[in-house]
Amino acid sequence: MVMIRSIVRPEKSQEVIDALFEAGFPAVTKINVAGRGQQKGLKVGEVVYDELPKDLLMTVVKDENKELVISIILETAKTGENGNYGDGKVFVSAVDDIYTISTGKKE
Amino acid sequence: MVMIRSIVRPEKSQEVIDALFEAGFPAVTKINVAGRGQQKGLKVGEVVYDELPKDLLMTVVKDENKELVISIILETAKTGENGNYGDGKVFVSAVDDIYTISTGKKE
Amino acid sequence: MVMIRSIVRPEKSQEVIDALFEAGFPAVTKINVAGRGQQKGLKVGEVVYDELPKDLLMTVVKDENKELVISIILETAKTGENGNYGDGKVFVSAVDDIYTISTGKKE
Repeated sequence: MVMIRSIVRPEKSQEVIDALFEAGFPAVTKINVAGRGQQKGLKVGEVVYDELPKDLLMTVVKDENKELVISIILETAKTGENGNYGDGKVFVSAVDDIYTISTGKKE
Repeated sequence: MVMIRSIVRPEKSQEVIDALFEAGFPAVTKINVAGRGQQKGLKVGEVVYDELPKDLLMTVVKDENKELVISIILETAKTGENGNYGDGKVFVSAVDDIYTISTGKKE
Repeated sequence: MVMIRSIVRPEKSQEVIDALFEAGFPAVTKINVAGRGQQKGLKVGEVVYDELPKDLLMTVVKDENKELVISIILETAKTGENGNYGDGKVFVSAVDDIYTISTGKKE
């Protein structure tokens, strides 16, 4: 199993969650975070926004579904045709064990 | 060392933290999250709750304490005799290095 | 690439972010968390604070920059000359893949 963490624009978050749901991946954990990427914040006129609200979406899937889930996230979290700075990142890392609390069993 | 992340019901969170504390594992980080599991939200009458508040508890323990800590979490985070959908998950993953900021030293 | 997660005092958080920025690491995700470390909360007179607000700073950097980034965090997140309980921890773990959403490309 792998843990896929996506940092996305809050306004894109529901769209990503819905797309994952439709593809058969309903289990997602969402965390409101503040983020600053390589673009070093956002300048609007005279005002510099040092950090911007983002959503961190965490989902754990089987290795065989990794590529599919990543492609769904990349497609739905992107803004416009060519994407924009601040659209976010996807991080993939290993999970060694998973337990379901209701059953107490290892998956 | 391993990182143990538990997604639990908020009303169970303090019980889990207390049980870990009593067993000698006081260090826990708690994050309020929104989650949706395999049960795809909760239907109460006509209303569907797409996502529910959960607590993400993060604790890092020695490999030798992994099984004990997991069993404490599984026991205390479960609702009722047989558990219920939405009780949550436990994810275990590797941590390579740990530093204590006050001493600046690697553990 | 490695993921470096630091749990720091909220009042130190901006200083750490600024120091990372100046050193060429602008990308940081900040999460407000509640934490309790090995010190088992804080006692002020009669009142025991079981858990204290902390900031979880998450940054992903190249392996070659790991030591530098950790040393910046350790230096700036420490309070006083000798550090204090509650200054926090730094956890380092592996990241397998990283994608940039705007380009859709793997890094």
